[in-house]
Amino acid sequence: MSATRGFAEGEYRARVARAQTGMQAEGLAALLLTTEPELRYFTGFLTRFWESPSRPWFLVLPAQGDPVAVIPAIGAALMATTWIGDIRTWAAPDLADDGVSLVADALRECGGPVGVPSHMETHLRMPLADFERLKQASGLGFTDDRGIVAECRAIKSEAEIAKIARSCAIAGRAFARLDEIAAPGVALSRVFRDFQRLLLEEGADWVPYLAGGAGPDGYADVISPASDTPLEAGDVLMLDTGAVWDGYFCDFDRNVAIARSSAAQRAAHARLIEAVHAGLEAARPGARACDLWRVMADILEVDESAGRLGHGLGMQLTEGLSLTAQDQTPLRAGMVITLEPGVEIAPGRIMVHEENIVITEGAPRVLSPMSDSDLPVIGK
Amino acid sequence: MSATRGFAEGEYRARVARAQTGMQAEGLAALLLTTEPELRYFTGFLTRFWESPSRPWFLVLPAQGDPVAVIPAIGAALMATTWIGDIRTWAAPDLADDGVSLVADALRECGGPVGVPSHMETHLRMPLADFERLKQASGLGFTDDRGIVAECRAIKSEAEIAKIARSCAIAGRAFARLDEIAAPGVALSRVFRDFQRLLLEEGADWVPYLAGGAGPDGYADVISPASDTPLEAGDVLMLDTGAVWDGYFCDFDRNVAIARSSAAQRAAHARLIEAVHAGLEAARPGARACDLWRVMADILEVDESAGRLGHGLGMQLTEGLSLTAQDQTPLRAGMVITLEPGVEIAPGRIMVHEENIVITEGAPRVLSPMSDSDLPVIGK
Repeated sequence: MSATRGFAEGEYRARVARAQTGMQAEGLAALLLTTEPELRYFTGFLTRFWESPSRPWFLVLPAQGDPVAVIPAIGAALMATTWIGDIRTWAAPDLADDGVSLVADALRECGGPVGVPSHMETHLRMPLADFERLKQASGLGFTDDRGIVAECRAIKSEAEIAKIARSCAIAGRAFARLDEIAAPGVALSRVFRDFQRLLLEEGADWVPYLAGGAGPDGYADVISPASDTPLEAGDVLMLDTGAVWDGYFCDFDRNVAIARSSAAQRAAHARLIEAVHAGLEAARPGARACDLWRVMADILEVDESAGRLGHGLGMQLTEGLSLTAQDQTPLRAGMVITLEPGVEIAPGRIMVHEENIVITEGAPRVLSPMSDSDLPVIGK
Repeated sequence: MSATRGFAEGEYRARVARAQTGMQAEGLAALLLTTEPELRYFTGFLTRFWESPSRPWFLVLPAQGDPVAVIPAIGAALMATTWIGDIRTWAAPDLADDGVSLVADALRECGGPVGVPSHMETHLRMPLADFERLKQASGLGFTDDRGIVAECRAIKSEAEIAKIARSCAIAGRAFARLDEIAAPGVALSRVFRDFQRLLLEEGADWVPYLAGGAGPDGYADVISPASDTPLEAGDVLMLDTGAVWDGYFCDFDRNVAIARSSAAQRAAHARLIEAVHAGLEAARPGARACDLWRVMADILEVDESAGRLGHGLGMQLTEGLSLTAQDQTPLRAGMVITLEPGVEIAPGRIMVHEENIVITEGAPRVLSPMSDSDLPVIGK
């Protein structure tokens, strides 16, 4: 399936129907959603304006019937381009009543209890004081959404997988051009800037995430921004990107040696790829997240302190399950996950590799262009 | 003052001291902070990893003494490069206890009540269910932070202003190159991609925000992502960007006519610039946000339904005061704000212009390269 922008209305309706089945099973009269991926998942409302924290946005999803968008007037024109028919707006930010009365009304039309995503990885994107006012104004009971939204989002449709695959292909082409931008003497901050440019040139809509590091013995972490330190011959450079096409992320990295590689770097890289292959082999429906963690951890010779070795992926850079010793989530066809093994190659210095895959009924499909065991050397 | 990366430790200590003065006045024993700008403001912890929603991050700011960072182990190496000495970590995500016990301990060392930013424009970036657990585990009382953090952040230091000025200069250079990328026949999505590339080439660390629109009678809104529709001669194109240098945003836009401009476009643009000048004239310490709104609204002949005509700016694309009829916040030297007038030029079609300024004891300093009244025409 090739990726096209947006989704058919039927896909949104199917998402709503799945959530409503869950709501009816859990006895919830409505869901109250406030975050970007939650609203986008059910409406298709796609904008970078969430970068502005000044205004809250609400979607009320009743146990029966269509969703109601309760949003700042600044979003009315864009929301009107989606399949959503019931759009209620106010002139936000309103110091006296920033949408609370409107959303209370919309919820009262549904009754309670109201499910609000409250568990791990969720947050409520509205002021806490307004949430208290909303509870009072609506007179309804509020509870967790029982994981209904996360459960809907965990299994990707073919159309969603096509978008993630396209993001992965874009990043793959950008990584293949690393030799254009990285060489001894080039500042890491310059490499970061140029790599974002390559991602855009290769078709990314935007680049929400880029991290990385460099050094002869790997890097200290995987979340640091770039320093102005120049690359040196013998460094291993890692770039990890979450580029987006039509609102769907890739999330994978590549390691390259600058001018020359060391035996320790090569051995670590080969070990990481071996762990990815073991993860791939184990990634079948019915295997649990912790089972994938175990087969990779065994090859890496790491324990639970190493952190997670992969995670779900989709509308967010990270979402859903974690490949840890704890997480017993069973894999199911349609889940998109990352395999992200890491090893320490010197005290406090690590190397990490990451690939993106989708679980199918048979062998997983690899969405990122799989690396082989050999650590590439560039900038010779 | 020219911009350099980071801040001196003294600046962070001064921020903490200001917050502590407020806490003592309000009788708060500690602040609990959970969002990216809140943590960065007091620690200097700068990473794009906040894009991943899987893990909560905490800063405990006691009424006396130094802050305590309670963070996922994945952030330990980066946090150790800041001035923060007391860093407590856990192997997140932990399904059994995702930092709650650690942060409860840190808060109990301070006592209560604990201030949590709860008012307009804030949110709590942790699962609601864990917040309830934290209240139980700590045994402390929780309340609003009384706006202490927002009040600290409202007045920018010279070092902060220098960073915003640098972001503005970067975007100004990119806007000056619009004729390289926009012309009749070029898809708007291509223009968006290329404009992000120009921002990176001109020195942006990254581009968290880009929106815009195009059409012969302006555009329907200011928050839409790009369509694949090609530009046509006679369109007015608007791009609005929040580019970042060292964690500080610019936020301004430019309008350009494609190949030729219409009398209505030119008149609207001149009116917008006239409104900006009126805003500039009024932007003195002691004037209120609503006073700036009034002088601009009078020129634009709009009422309150037009939405806000500017806002604060800094570590976020939008923060702090709103230029609305309601907002009585007095301007003070060191506030960085946008002037963002908009007019309707056809039913449902608008033009918007935006500049960034800093309030001083005298006339405001314009940080973005001020546009003049003439609507530029490119792609002829």
